[in-house]
Amino acid sequence: MAQLEICFSPAMFPNYFREEANVVVIDVLRATTSMCVAFMNGACKVIPVGTVEELLHYVGSDCLIAAERDGVPLDFADFGNSPDEFTPERVRGRVVAYSTTNGTQTIRTASGCHGVYIGAYSNFSAVCRVLIAAQRPVIILCSGWKNRFNLEDSVLAGAMAERLLEAGFESHCDSVAASLDLWSLARTDLLGYSLKYAHRHRLKGLGIDKVIPFCHQFDITSVVPRFDGEALVATEQ
Amino acid sequence: MAQLEICFSPAMFPNYFREEANVVVIDVLRATTSMCVAFMNGACKVIPVGTVEELLHYVGSDCLIAAERDGVPLDFADFGNSPDEFTPERVRGRVVAYSTTNGTQTIRTASGCHGVYIGAYSNFSAVCRVLIAAQRPVIILCSGWKNRFNLEDSVLAGAMAERLLEAGFESHCDSVAASLDLWSLARTDLLGYSLKYAHRHRLKGLGIDKVIPFCHQFDITSVVPRFDGEALVATEQ
Repeated sequence: MAQLEICFSPAMFPNYFREEANVVVIDVLRATTSMCVAFMNGACKVIPVGTVEELLHYVGSDCLIAAERDGVPLDFADFGNSPDEFTPERVRGRVVAYSTTNGTQTIRTASGCHGVYIGAYSNFSAVCRVLIAAQRPVIILCSGWKNRFNLEDSVLAGAMAERLLEAGFESHCDSVAASLDLWSLARTDLLGYSLKYAHRHRLKGLGIDKVIPFCHQFDITSVVPRFDGEALVATEQ
Repeated sequence: MAQLEICFSPAMFPNYFREEANVVVIDVLRATTSMCVAFMNGACKVIPVGTVEELLHYVGSDCLIAAERDGVPLDFADFGNSPDEFTPERVRGRVVAYSTTNGTQTIRTASGCHGVYIGAYSNFSAVCRVLIAAQRPVIILCSGWKNRFNLEDSVLAGAMAERLLEAGFESHCDSVAASLDLWSLARTDLLGYSLKYAHRHRLKGLGIDKVIPFCHQFDITSVVPRFDGEALVATEQ
């Protein structure tokens, strides 16, 4: 059976890397949730951009620019990093160059593996179906916070692990065991559990913690963004 | 109040590093448990050695050599990495050059911080007393497994976090929240919970999983080994 592993931070990813694996990148608050919404609302491509310097190359191009650092939109961006900013009116038919504190760098970290997919509560069942159908090893890669562990990505990783193990995946990975335990504590009251998240307090400080319930809604889309080496493109499941 | 953080892997430590912090290195199975036992049994110094090449410099010296890789003692070593090998007959009055897969490298990773201490179930209350008395920021550094997350170090980190928070430490760290939750699930039956540990299965494969109950005994010594930049020395609490 195919193996399942979870990596809690991009800083540890070299120690989990397997060329033959499918990787699911998750950044619940907010990058991968917003990516799902962007495609749900008709974006044709999302280019994950690592650094602010690289992003400046897109100023004056046909691309929309979505960008934040430490939760705050950058001043030259068209908008920031909240899923409610990726409206149909803005993104339909457009290419979005997108750069965030954690999530967009993480996607490039994973390139080199067989497939790189975007996961969130928003597309939970769809991304699990892709992974189950492929029957390849899976690494769930949590974006974390500035290369540290974060709780919100780990809880979603636990929920995904449960679904994949039920479908026959195997695991001998301690991060999977820990994530399943965290998910078991969080599942009955996800928003109550989210009070523990350090990032909740950062977002509250910025007045944008209202985004948290939206980011914890299961299955609002069946789009599974896939990284083609240059950009994210939509696959429907 | 002093801040508490937990780092789940040496690979993430650069993102937690604070020069003014006291660091507690833990590697429950087995390096930091064995270090506590070495001092309890009268060793005068333990030199943590990172690589096998460096360790070869100690062959033919007055030092005892304790060393393993992937759980297996190295053939030129006097003995391996289990606490029951650090007997009074062997170690009393001796200097031990000690190299393991994870724990001994981790100690050197932490040098540069204010204080570097060794923690295990074996010296749990004593090491907590040192940290509480110092009233400095604390980083609990889990050795993990080959720069990955491991569960056994994270559970002990949760137990230490509980003690330190009760004593007035503050935390805004997601790893602390996660470790407290893991500890809450493990505490009533630590050995039952240890069935989840991937490393338990590695040790069982080597026929040495009998060491696990010993490594989960609280407070068998009040020695707190401290790294002085070159070697571990004993401090009594």
